[in-house]
Amino acid sequence: MSRQSNRTTDSKKMNSELFTLTYGALVTQLCKDYENDEEVNKQLDKMGYNIGVRLIEDFLARSSVGRCQDFRETADVIAKVAFKMYLGVTPSVTNWSPAGDEFSLILESNPLVDFVELPDNHSNLVYSSLLCGVLKGALEMVQMAVDVRFAQDTLRGDSVTEIRMKFIKRIEENVPAGDE
Amino acid sequence: MSRQSNRTTDSKKMNSELFTLTYGALVTQLCKDYENDEEVNKQLDKMGYNIGVRLIEDFLARSSVGRCQDFRETADVIAKVAFKMYLGVTPSVTNWSPAGDEFSLILESNPLVDFVELPDNHSNLVYSSLLCGVLKGALEMVQMAVDVRFAQDTLRGDSVTEIRMKFIKRIEENVPAGDE
Repeated sequence: MSRQSNRTTDSKKMNSELFTLTYGALVTQLCKDYENDEEVNKQLDKMGYNIGVRLIEDFLARSSVGRCQDFRETADVIAKVAFKMYLGVTPSVTNWSPAGDEFSLILESNPLVDFVELPDNHSNLVYSSLLCGVLKGALEMVQMAVDVRFAQDTLRGDSVTEIRMKFIKRIEENVPAGDE
Repeated sequence: MSRQSNRTTDSKKMNSELFTLTYGALVTQLCKDYENDEEVNKQLDKMGYNIGVRLIEDFLARSSVGRCQDFRETADVIAKVAFKMYLGVTPSVTNWSPAGDEFSLILESNPLVDFVELPDNHSNLVYSSLLCGVLKGALEMVQMAVDVRFAQDTLRGDSVTEIRMKFIKRIEENVPAGDE
């Protein structure tokens, strides 16, 4: 599905439940389509990446956040502005690496997993992988290559959800493929 | 994915864009999985039905709406409470049939189709079919069988989106299959 060039910037605030259940339908469909959980995780990550690449434009337009000075500021913007805007929750930023190139987002509650219990035969499914992809895709569009993975997950019995983000490198500015 | 029995009722308010893009990923995936648009429409409708069957519980808990006296009241609750809650928009209720068993929901703006343009080779795709299923599934759980279809769609060049709803019959109260 391609992008409309002239859409409006008015936003709709909605409760998260329809999104949560629709995301569940997507994961269920992928579990039918692919052989194993690893492949489903990879597909969710890839879909998320494509979403992030497009969502960043909306985010920059809506948030009027400028260029971040460092990774700490990036972390704060992700937690306090982006998560709040698109998922309605504000994770805490913690567990910084001594070098300042790695941190964790701790979600007390993850809207994606309301209503969900992992079936026993999907023990390797990283259910919310889409979020990793979204973060990677969005940050890549503002010239940051990052690694994103789930370090803890309430679906696997952990008490919180922890997303671990690692700065890899700054990407040279250039025109994104296909955009000009 | 199965339902948790003891989830909380606090809700998260989120902007619609992540939902919109995730829904787009779902439709795109189904277009890859199925031979033709009609089959994709059917799958979206079916997924929506399963979502509606579960969403109604959340809706009744959150809205404290009681049993509707007639189809007109049902129409108002769907438009003013349910759409507002889960999609952040309030369609108008109009085009009543003389018998009062059929009406239209007119959406000036449909959050599901932001960012979307239908590719030429998907002229039979009813992109937002999931919503028909959601409405059918949810209403069935409150003992109303309805028929739901898109009568107009901005994706197909119409100026508004029109969802046509027709009352079929009241369903005898009984325990839903698999719930006891």
